[in-house]
Formats: sequence, structure tokens, C-alpha cells
Amino acid sequence: MDDEHFDLLQAPPAHHDGSERYVSNTRPELGDVVVLSVRFADTLGVTDVYVRVVVDGEPQYRKAAVSHHHPEASETWWTVPIDIINTLTSYRFMAQTDRTTLWLNGTGLHDHNIPDAEDFKLSIHHPPRWARDAVIYQIFPDRFAQSRQHPLPSLPQWAIPTDWNTPVASNTPEGVRQIYGGSLWGIAENLDYIQELGANTIYVTPFFPGRSNHRYDASTFEYVDPLLGGDNALKTLITQAHHRGMHLIGDLTLNHTGISHEWFVTAMAHPESPEAGFYHIDRTPPYSYACFNGASSLPKLDHRSHELRRRLYSGPHSVAARYIRDFGLDGWRIDVAQSAGKYHGIDLGHLVASETRKTMDETRADLLLIAEHQFDPSAALQGDGWQGTMAYGWFTKPIWAWIGPHQHGNSWGAPGKAESIGGEELSQMMQEYSSLVPWQSYITSMNLLDSHDTARFRTVSKEFQSLGVALLMTLPGIPSIFSGDEVGVEGGDLEEGRQPFPWDRHLWDMHVYSLYRRLLKVRRDHPALQDGGLRWFNSDADSIIFERSDNKETLLIEVSRASHSPLISTVNGRELLGGADLVEGRKMPTDGPSFHIWQVPA
Amino acid sequence: MDDEHFDLLQAPPAHHDGSERYVSNTRPELGDVVVLSVRFADTLGVTDVYVRVVVDGEPQYRKAAVSHHHPEASETWWTVPIDIINTLTSYRFMAQTDRTTLWLNGTGLHDHNIPDAEDFKLSIHHPPRWARDAVIYQIFPDRFAQSRQHPLPSLPQWAIPTDWNTPVASNTPEGVRQIYGGSLWGIAENLDYIQELGANTIYVTPFFPGRSNHRYDASTFEYVDPLLGGDNALKTLITQAHHRGMHLIGDLTLNHTGISHEWFVTAMAHPESPEAGFYHIDRTPPYSYACFNGASSLPKLDHRSHELRRRLYSGPHSVAARYIRDFGLDGWRIDVAQSAGKYHGIDLGHLVASETRKTMDETRADLLLIAEHQFDPSAALQGDGWQGTMAYGWFTKPIWAWIGPHQHGNSWGAPGKAESIGGEELSQMMQEYSSLVPWQSYITSMNLLDSHDTARFRTVSKEFQSLGVALLMTLPGIPSIFSGDEVGVEGGDLEEGRQPFPWDRHLWDMHVYSLYRRLLKVRRDHPALQDGGLRWFNSDADSIIFERSDNKETLLIEVSRASHSPLISTVNGRELLGGADLVEGRKMPTDGPSFHIWQVPA
Repeated sequence: MDDEHFDLLQAPPAHHDGSERYVSNTRPELGDVVVLSVRFADTLGVTDVYVRVVVDGEPQYRKAAVSHHHPEASETWWTVPIDIINTLTSYRFMAQTDRTTLWLNGTGLHDHNIPDAEDFKLSIHHPPRWARDAVIYQIFPDRFAQSRQHPLPSLPQWAIPTDWNTPVASNTPEGVRQIYGGSLWGIAENLDYIQELGANTIYVTPFFPGRSNHRYDASTFEYVDPLLGGDNALKTLITQAHHRGMHLIGDLTLNHTGISHEWFVTAMAHPESPEAGFYHIDRTPPYSYACFNGASSLPKLDHRSHELRRRLYSGPHSVAARYIRDFGLDGWRIDVAQSAGKYHGIDLGHLVASETRKTMDETRADLLLIAEHQFDPSAALQGDGWQGTMAYGWFTKPIWAWIGPHQHGNSWGAPGKAESIGGEELSQMMQEYSSLVPWQSYITSMNLLDSHDTARFRTVSKEFQSLGVALLMTLPGIPSIFSGDEVGVEGGDLEEGRQPFPWDRHLWDMHVYSLYRRLLKVRRDHPALQDGGLRWFNSDADSIIFERSDNKETLLIEVSRASHSPLISTVNGRELLGGADLVEGRKMPTDGPSFHIWQVPA
Repeated sequence: MDDEHFDLLQAPPAHHDGSERYVSNTRPELGDVVVLSVRFADTLGVTDVYVRVVVDGEPQYRKAAVSHHHPEASETWWTVPIDIINTLTSYRFMAQTDRTTLWLNGTGLHDHNIPDAEDFKLSIHHPPRWARDAVIYQIFPDRFAQSRQHPLPSLPQWAIPTDWNTPVASNTPEGVRQIYGGSLWGIAENLDYIQELGANTIYVTPFFPGRSNHRYDASTFEYVDPLLGGDNALKTLITQAHHRGMHLIGDLTLNHTGISHEWFVTAMAHPESPEAGFYHIDRTPPYSYACFNGASSLPKLDHRSHELRRRLYSGPHSVAARYIRDFGLDGWRIDVAQSAGKYHGIDLGHLVASETRKTMDETRADLLLIAEHQFDPSAALQGDGWQGTMAYGWFTKPIWAWIGPHQHGNSWGAPGKAESIGGEELSQMMQEYSSLVPWQSYITSMNLLDSHDTARFRTVSKEFQSLGVALLMTLPGIPSIFSGDEVGVEGGDLEEGRQPFPWDRHLWDMHVYSLYRRLLKVRRDHPALQDGGLRWFNSDADSIIFERSDNKETLLIEVSRASHSPLISTVNGRELLGGADLVEGRKMPTDGPSFHIWQVPA
């Protein structure tokens, strides 16, 4: 026993989420009955529990029954069946005590009734089953690997051939024109490496030709860039990946094309052409056109055009469908999804998402469709749109704000200094953003510490890299590794971060590499980390504690950015990474920066 | 000076809302520049302020400048211009201090970044200007007044003729069949009464024929029910109301019709008719059809039918347009808007709202379009849908939960006992619900203590009726009086509440009647109560304090359900209702139930 007084490790007083411990069928169809479970601490004095479900726009209440009482945890579990009548089922729980009425939704327990926005949500639109244990390896193809068998073709005029060991000319006009010569062939020849790391899904940034090494300025969607090996290389890469049980998703921009795109060239030259309607062109001299982020090289697409939609993402003849069908691609990451279809008085954002999704669903049953959204992505993630997002909002940004600014500022386009938050705010942000989307969209989103669009996390937060990796592998969502992170590649801005992969193992940080592999193994061995539920325990500024739990096991995770005062454990737990076990009634670890993963009783 | 220690009256540390004190143009068009103002208490130590505006889906930041420092209030005002580029402008403020980053949105100040849902919102779709000082008098036409000049026609078979003084047969099958003989002629003959009370807008529940006294089971939309005086009575009533500068809105159900509706009769008899597509009919024997709330007398409309939409609310030949154009109606209240267009796998809720709104906008520029929504109405109130809602969610329910259950339970369809909350939760609920919609939708919604769909507020909350009336006249929104409330009519459920208006003045509660008239005069004389901004000051369980303020004056309102400990005033204030003035440094009133309205410095 401890002599001093410390707080006890404490579970939240009430909990439900969209995982299998609380939802009997996480992939329901219309007409199904789903049994929901919810738990309340006995200290609340709950006498009656109801679920409030919105059906055809009207709330309906169903009374829950006590399922079991858990005397050790002093809590009671309740269950209640609901009917799946609408495509999106929105629900929350009402608990009555002798004195008050409590409400439980995605942000926790409330002492007054709350709007529907943060209701739990259950959709009938499901992500592919393989997404459950997916681990994404993100490749910027010019920078991952040159082919040993397929020489680089001659370069176009804009390209600057660059040696693999030359530093990136970041923040110069040459930066986006440097071609290091990585290709899809190069990826195919290094699948062993990716698989040994523990990733099973490749996300490759655009493979369509453009006039830059990032290729987000597509000049055509008709074929794969010959610089990357062309159609043949993509087909071969996908075939070989599939042969290993791996998946590959592409990167498609629906918001804009490059100025050299054949559609834009036709549109400008021929006002009567169908393509003229693909862009927002003002033909009063001097001609002008809408573009993305003020970049005149990126003309914005006008999604009011049926023909554009048909060519790009609606129906079997669209670009989105063709590369699935003809090449075997397993899905798409959609670039700049937050802006696609939105321009001044026009907002077709939902149409873009739902038509693309419909095309995907009609093309193949097991496709992954993830949208880039750096801000609040919830509007297009309600089930019939994108399956998931790049989780900048509820994952990357809170983590950078918690363990980033100590080293380096990044404010995601916001002026002034970077935000800095404590552990309590970290968990609040994660809950507030993720509660706006169905659980399936939450766990099917790409968690990422960084990407081709940011500085490297290691540079932002050097002494905390391992904490970020621990959170990447233990929080809900698909872990996504930007190629190079796992061996210690650095970069203070997005271009520097896109440096070529260091194939010389002497340059690797072996501690980091081994941490990635170990944590990916832990995740693989413990499906609770893949799609288990999430409960937030008591956090303080320097240390957060959360639980992941499925029907088989429960893991408790503590991540600390600094040493802190101890909590007294209320459970026994076995440390999965070989550290100290948890002992009920004894102090929990106080060290930091550090992380721990314990197996605890359910 | 006081000897004891009491808390000071305290303004929120930061504030902005959509009213004219904070938004230079509350009715902007695309292309306009609008200057936003925001205030921060000096104690926060704010060094830089930015507005974050979402443009075409991407956040943009603009730096605010100090506009003036207010030493007495120890606060600083900042201003920043923004461009109106999208139909809905979503924005929040970021304030940086030496140590932290703060965010201000519709629910207040946050110590971490928050999702966009509760952003401030500025729409280019505007309500009619006359809504600003509208006061609605809701009439259930069978129960307001019989005509002295136009005798009742012979009754249809279903109707039970009932004497004006007979109690309503509530909770019996006869309840909805009793006809007391009120008519539109009767309303026209009593416009003096309504105007003397202080109302200027009449909302009349359905005037289409049905098979009940409530007429929410329409049998046609072709003509006005002859029982109510027919087309002629409606035209005369509207003409006379307009002559007095009054407005009149009708009540249209888009969710369902009655089973006797000519469309439904045709639909059932003729599977090949266009009308067959107006309903969700399952023709496998035995025939069945979707209906509202399980009532087989109310078949639900299928809004996938273009022809239905054309007849009902899309375009100039629709019912919605015709009664505006041919009768001079000033708008509609839409019945059961939360369900219209929603059925199982189908969700056309937004289409129903936006097409109706488009028709209204094309028919006449100054129409009012308010939707019934008893729950979270925000999804259809984002500017291009309904202009406002019946504010059950952010007005009626919190008030009933604060001062209702002491007398009587009502749980709005929820099982178990009614919710009971304190003053802090009251203000939280009001902020959390209203923050989800543009300010214009907030102030253009119908505030109501009760309606034809509820028990009478007086019965629910007898000793607190005056508090409810004070909140009705002082909180943002259009005050709406269910005919009879103002003279003390009671009723423990919705049918009892629909009792005939007591024209015998001996039956009136003259105290209540005079309170309504006095408070309506205060509201008329003080436009800050109409569209002024709203700030919540410190509340406790038994007493709430808020401020309404426009560019001309500032009013401080205290409403207390019980006696409570005093605050020390930080301002001088003149009591508008003849009570005690506020003196800076002195105790504020501690009495309750009570309310006070003071004129205070800006």
C-alpha cells in the first residue's frame, strides 16, 4: 500500500461505442435487428435506461434491460435491440436516476439533452472487410525505389534528373521538377521490404502523368505515367501485391486537373466543346478560370457538368471505375476532397462523394475509398459518401499539438504560433471530431503522423517519435506510414520530407525501425487494437490512458510525454512490451516520455 | 457596500453572435464584404485575433485589428472584414495569448480546436424583413371564434356538433370529431382582439378539408374547408389582415395526407395513375402502405415522385405557390418537417426543404417559411431550406425542463419521468442547439411555450407562467402565442389544450392578460429584444441572467424560478417594468419566482 494519497485509475462512468463489444452486428443491413450494449457505473444510481433512435426523422425510445452486473467494476451492463430501418441509424442513450436524466452520446455523458449531431451512428454502407487489419504504407513513387530491371525512359522537358543522394531542392522552383527516378517497377521489386515491415496495403500518390514529381497536376487520366513504368508497371505491381495478399490504392484528384490536362486544353480552345463545361472559365477578356488555392496551374473542375462526372467518377466508364476494373486497383484515396465540387455559390460536395461511392460499390464489393480532409470531414462521412478520411482532424493535429510544438511549429495553414494542448484536450479533440461520424468511418480512416503534405513527424517532435508511433498503432483507425518514417527519415517541410528512401541500412535509425516492427506485430497479434472499442480513462496534461477492447481481450495503453505523478492502478495487467506489470492497488508508472501496453481483465 | 462576500455579475469572457452589433451586414449577398466584431476580456491576455473562414471547403485566416478598448468593462473589441463567397459562410475566431490558443464559436470559448459544426454561420438566404418584429398568434380555427355573420354550413357525417361551452372529449375517439364551429370568418371578425393584444401575425392550423377538427388529415388541397368558410373566408381574412398591416401564414403537411385524400383514393384504385407513385404502397395482398406514426389514416407521401413535388411544393403550379399567389398568404408553417421525405432507405429531407424554399422565393420576396421540428432541426436550417423552425429544441423543452416538471410531467414522447434541469443547463441547451444554425434561422424561429400539439404551459407550470412569458418575449426568436394562453386557458394534454377560446372576459386571468400586453409592448418598444445579440451571464440552478443588445441599447434580463443568493451588480440599470433599479456594487434581487428587465450601458 502507498502512504501518500494518489488518484485512482478511473474508467469513464458510462460507455458505448460502435465496436463489437457494444453492437451485436457492426455491418448490418436494412431490416436487421441489432442489439446494443451500454455500461453505467453503479455510482450514478441509474434506475432505467432507454435508447433513443431516430426513425424516418422521428425519435423512438426503447427500454433497455439489465444484462449483467459486474461487481468488481461496480458497473451494470444494459442491452436493448433496435431495428435497422434507415440507411444511417442515429441513436443515443437516456439514463434515469432518482434525481436526474443523463444522456450518453459520442462525446460522453451529459446532464442535459443534447442535439443529434454527436449521436452514435450506425450505417448500412460498409468498408471492405480487409480494411480491418490493413496497415497502409504510403509511397511517393518518385522517391521510394528505382527499378533494377526497368531503366528510366527519357525525361520530359520540365523534369530535372536528380541523383538519389542529392538533397531535395525544397522551397525553390526546382523542387517539384526534380525526378529521382523511383517507379512502380521499383515498388514491385521491394514488396518484400514492405511486407517485412508489417504493412499490407500500399497507398501510392498519383500515377497519372503531370508536369511535376508529385503529379497532383494531372495532364491525362488515360494512362499511367511512362516515367513510373506506364500501365504495364501498375498492372504488374498490383498483380504481385495481390499474390502476396496485399492491397494497393491509387490517388485521384476530383477537385482540379493540371493546366496541361487535355480536357483543359480543349476547354480553353473550344468554348463549344463538352470539356468547356468541365471548368469554371470566365471568357470575358482577359480569360480567367477558377483554380485551387490560387495556383493557376491547377484549374478547378466544375461538377455541375454531367459529362465530367461521367468521365471522372460516375458509372462504369469513369476513370474511378476503369482503374479498378482494368488494373485491379483496390480503391482510391481522393485528393482535396474538402473542396471538390465547392466553388462560390455551388456546393456539390455531397454529390461528388456519394456518386464516387456508388460507382465504387457497383464496380467491386471490397474497395476502399478514403478522402483527404485536413479539417472537419464529418459532412461527407455519414455512410453513403467516403468510407474514411485521412484523420488529420482527430488524430494528427491533436498529437502534433500535444507532443509537437515543443520542437517545431506547424499550424496547418493557421497563422501565428502552433497550438499546444495538454492530454485532457487531446482526448477531447479526438472524441469531439470522431463522434461526428459513424464508428465504421472512424476505424476506416487513415491515421497518420505525417504525409507527403507535411513535415516529417520525427523532425517536428524528435524525442517523442516513439510516442507518436505507439499512438499510431493503438488508437482506432488504419495505421498509415509515410515511407521512410520507419527508418528515421527527416524533413522540416513537405518537400524536404519527400526525400528519397535511404536504402543504405547504415543510415537507418534501427531503434525506430525495430519499434515500428514490434508495434505492428503487437497490433497484428491483438485484434482489439484493430477494431476494438475505445474508452478514455483519466488523463492529465502529460499522460493519457485509454483502453481498446473487443470480445476477446482488453488492453490498457498509457502514453506520457513527461514524468508525472502516479495513479493507483485498479487492475492487474501484463505489460505486452516487456516492461513492468500493473498491480492492483500499486502505483502506475510515472516515467516519460514513455508508453506502456498492458493486457488487463475485460 | 456589502459585508458578506457574494459573486459579481459576470459577462462571458469572449463574445460574438450574428446580430448587428457584431456583423456589419446581417443580410449579405454574394460578393459583399462584411465586417465582423468580437470582444475579449482583458483578463484572457489575448495578443492576436484571427477569424477562420471556410471558403470553398478550405479554411482561410484573416487577422483582426483592435477596434477599441473598453476600460470600464476591461475588454477589447476587435474587427475583421470577410468576403461573402459561399452561400453559407462558416467561421470561428482564433485568439492567441502568450501561453495558449483559444477558439470562440457558437457555444463559447474553447481551449482547443473544435469541429466546424458549431461555427458561426452567415447565409445569403434571408427571411422577410417583417419577421423581425413579428409576434405570432396561433389559431386552431375550429376553437377561436364563431362568426356572427356567417352561419355554419351543414356538417359532414363524421363531425359531432358541439356547443362552445362543452368540455373537449379529450382522449376519446370523439375528441377529434367535435366541431365547435369556429371559422376563418370568426377570425376576421376578431382581428381587433389580436391586434390589441399586440400580435401582428396569425398562424392558422390547416384550412384544407379533412375528417377531423385538426385537419392534419387533408382530403384535398384544392379548396378551403367550407366548414371554415371556404375560399371566400380565407381571402377576406387575409385582405383584412393585410389592411391592418398584419400577416397570415398557413399550415401545410408535406409528410402525409389523409386517407380520404383524392390522391390517395386514386392511388389505391389505379396502380397506373401518377398518384400511385405519390405514396409508398405495397400491392402484394393484403395491400399495405407507409403511414405516419403508425396511423393508418395518415398515408405517408413518397417524394421520389416528380409529379407529387410539382403538385405539392415545386414551382408555380404547386399548392405551396398557389395559396400565396391567389389568396395572398404570407407564408407557411410546414407540418412534421422532420419526417417529410424520409422513409426507410430514402432520405429526401433536404430536397423537400430546399425545393419548397425555392418555390417560395420565386413566388414572392417576403414570405415566411417555418418548419415544425420537435427535435434537432439543424440539418434543414442551413440557409437554403426552412427559414426557421418551431423552437421546441432550444426554447420550449429547456424551459419546460427548468420550470415545468415541478408541476407536471411532459417528456415529448420520451418514456419515464420528465427531465428537470438547472439554470446552467438551460443556457447550455439553448446555446448548443441554436449554435448549429445561422443566426437568421435562430431569430426567425417560432418561440413557443406550448402549441396545439402540447399541454398548455399554464397547466404544466402554473406558478411559473409569468416566467415563461418573460422568456418568450425576451429571448431571440419570434414570440408565438397559442390562442388562449394569454387569458389563462388550461389543458393537461393536447386535446384539452385545444378548448374553445373563452370570450367571456369574466373567465380570464386578467393578471396574465395584462402581463402579455405589457411584455409585448416592451418588446415592441425595444428592438434589441427582437434581433439584438444574446450574451449569457452567470446562471445558477434557480436564476438565469442574459443580455440582449443592439447598436442602440442594451437590456439585462434576470429570470428566477426561486429565491437565491444575490450577485453584486457591476452596472447601473433602470428597471423597465417599474421594479428596483440596479446599482453598481450593490446586491441584485434575490426574489423568485420573478423576472426583471433593466436598461444598462452598452
